[in-house]
Amino acid sequence: MFEYKALASQGRARAGIFSTPHGELKTPAFAPVGTQATVKTLTPAQLDELGASLVLSNTYHLYLRPGDELIRTLGGLHAFMQWPRPMLTDSGGFQVFSLAKTRKIDDDGVTFKSHIDGSTHRFTPEKSIQIQENLGADIIMAFDECSDPNDHAYSKIAMERTHRWAERCLTVKTRSDQALFGIIQGGVNPDLRAASAQFIASLPFPGIAIGGLSVGETKDEMHTTIDLITPLLPENKPRYLMGVGTPEDLINGIARGVDIFDCVLPTRLARHNAAFSSEGRLNLMNAAFARDPRPIDETCGCYTCQTFTRAYLRHLIVAKELLAGTLLSIHNLHTMIALVNDMRASIFDGTFESKISFWLDQWQGNAERTKNLSENY
Amino acid sequence: MFEYKALASQGRARAGIFSTPHGELKTPAFAPVGTQATVKTLTPAQLDELGASLVLSNTYHLYLRPGDELIRTLGGLHAFMQWPRPMLTDSGGFQVFSLAKTRKIDDDGVTFKSHIDGSTHRFTPEKSIQIQENLGADIIMAFDECSDPNDHAYSKIAMERTHRWAERCLTVKTRSDQALFGIIQGGVNPDLRAASAQFIASLPFPGIAIGGLSVGETKDEMHTTIDLITPLLPENKPRYLMGVGTPEDLINGIARGVDIFDCVLPTRLARHNAAFSSEGRLNLMNAAFARDPRPIDETCGCYTCQTFTRAYLRHLIVAKELLAGTLLSIHNLHTMIALVNDMRASIFDGTFESKISFWLDQWQGNAERTKNLSENY
Repeated sequence: MFEYKALASQGRARAGIFSTPHGELKTPAFAPVGTQATVKTLTPAQLDELGASLVLSNTYHLYLRPGDELIRTLGGLHAFMQWPRPMLTDSGGFQVFSLAKTRKIDDDGVTFKSHIDGSTHRFTPEKSIQIQENLGADIIMAFDECSDPNDHAYSKIAMERTHRWAERCLTVKTRSDQALFGIIQGGVNPDLRAASAQFIASLPFPGIAIGGLSVGETKDEMHTTIDLITPLLPENKPRYLMGVGTPEDLINGIARGVDIFDCVLPTRLARHNAAFSSEGRLNLMNAAFARDPRPIDETCGCYTCQTFTRAYLRHLIVAKELLAGTLLSIHNLHTMIALVNDMRASIFDGTFESKISFWLDQWQGNAERTKNLSENY
Repeated sequence: MFEYKALASQGRARAGIFSTPHGELKTPAFAPVGTQATVKTLTPAQLDELGASLVLSNTYHLYLRPGDELIRTLGGLHAFMQWPRPMLTDSGGFQVFSLAKTRKIDDDGVTFKSHIDGSTHRFTPEKSIQIQENLGADIIMAFDECSDPNDHAYSKIAMERTHRWAERCLTVKTRSDQALFGIIQGGVNPDLRAASAQFIASLPFPGIAIGGLSVGETKDEMHTTIDLITPLLPENKPRYLMGVGTPEDLINGIARGVDIFDCVLPTRLARHNAAFSSEGRLNLMNAAFARDPRPIDETCGCYTCQTFTRAYLRHLIVAKELLAGTLLSIHNLHTMIALVNDMRASIFDGTFESKISFWLDQWQGNAERTKNLSENY
């Protein structure tokens, strides 16, 4: 259990398998985010059709509502949300820092107020593990502290606290059917990142995560940081880049040896009427699409693109029909999952490095690319 | 085309087939309502899994947004919303009277203001047919006027106008691939209903609808009115009871010789967190369900009941997750479709009349039935 096998590689890019109690996770893998025990607007059956392999859910949210004890009583998160394949829960740390109303951090843990009702709560490494054991995901995360990436002094304090907390998490963990991943912190400071990678890699974690990226640093800083870290990590453990990212980020991450990603972007964009397209990001609310008989992306094989026109999607959005969010979520998640599957296949067949420029052509700066909206239909 | 064949009957209940350009419609049938070219929160694939056979869409809404000309340009409503089976559009009359901001009726038509932007529009029988021909449903409806059912004087005026409009609709209709149904009006006034049934039955409509019920009259008045009408109708045309209703109404309607029903109730209830159950209507928001490991209805075979607990559904509702509406819509529509399928099968096997009391036991007064919510989980 929890063995990672690299089956093929090209440059630093790896294709492998990570075994979990809910089946083998093929890597590289992109995990849709099901914050509140649901990937927003999608049934598990629809996620399954999308080929989703790993789903992430948020410890902070589930602890507050409906409560981890309730989920444990009902058989754990897999049973509760009826997702039969691998699941991952984060530690709650990042959400406490980004969502909670107020928080006070000390060496033992964090006291915070719920963003839902203002009630006061406290997370410690021990509490985070206890909650995650109640939730019962296959992969659970060490409790960590994310810092302002450019603040060296604070990044050092946060990193050192993260290291002490990592050891406490390993100590209190009891379930053998869960893989606890350690998290590397240190902002965009090379000395701290190197120290953190070496320290976390020295502990008996079956997988290693890179935290504290995609939090405001530049793309160059993100790439330099990953470039520094992955060579310091063991080959026989999966590497998880937390909360990342765009299609472009996935290409750059996989090329640098990352195996697992998660991000809310595909479903969040869907709720804002936006769709990935290899020609540029589309806002389907745009009047230019009112009579457009084409799918979102003519090269896409998803249910939405195989079935519906841009004109129909725009109508649903203008008419405030919730189906729009479902159909755009399907498309955006498919785009990410299909891209990662493409990259995995190309690592096996030896074409990965030759295809990077093709993928980057499609996806680099994709969000900013201006689609020609003046065509008339 | 548009031939109705009664294949079996028991008492006045009929099981038959109505042929349309998009396949045979097995009757009795319950049509989910897709007001704005979408059955709210469901993909056509999900509707298909539910066994939906006929979908209704609203002419008033689609005329206003996105516009019937746009839908025609994109290949008609079937192509636009990608529903491959039979579709029905109403005439827009009922919505003009119930939704438009102001309306002024005269013998030629109705002038009204849009509920969306207050803009002024005019529907006539000719305009309604033109719009419905642009939309391209298999079954289209004559433009009619629905009256306060207990106001005899106004009901007579509205009925007579409905009759003149029915003839005008027949005159202007051009498409041979659409079946135009006439509508019987007359409120709950037996003399008017009898006259209207005889008049509409005398015209060359391939199907006949009963309008103006489920608009405030009592259940007894509804039943008496149907009892009076169906014996006056030809055996070789389908009978459609518009905008009806609850599971109980379907049982009573089918027993009285009705073949087709439509109603927003299943999806509207879903949006209000309510679920049909043979034990009584449930509001899944109720705290009593917080830890309830049972499905909505243990006797139900729908995806929602086969997959999720009441506790999970309540969590989705409390957490304001849109998936709740999807899952409750699936359950509520399944309940209606499965009930009608049960009745159809029992008409074939000769058990319909003996099962009526069983079905009514489950569904009569179901909405008011108090479910015991004090059980502890």
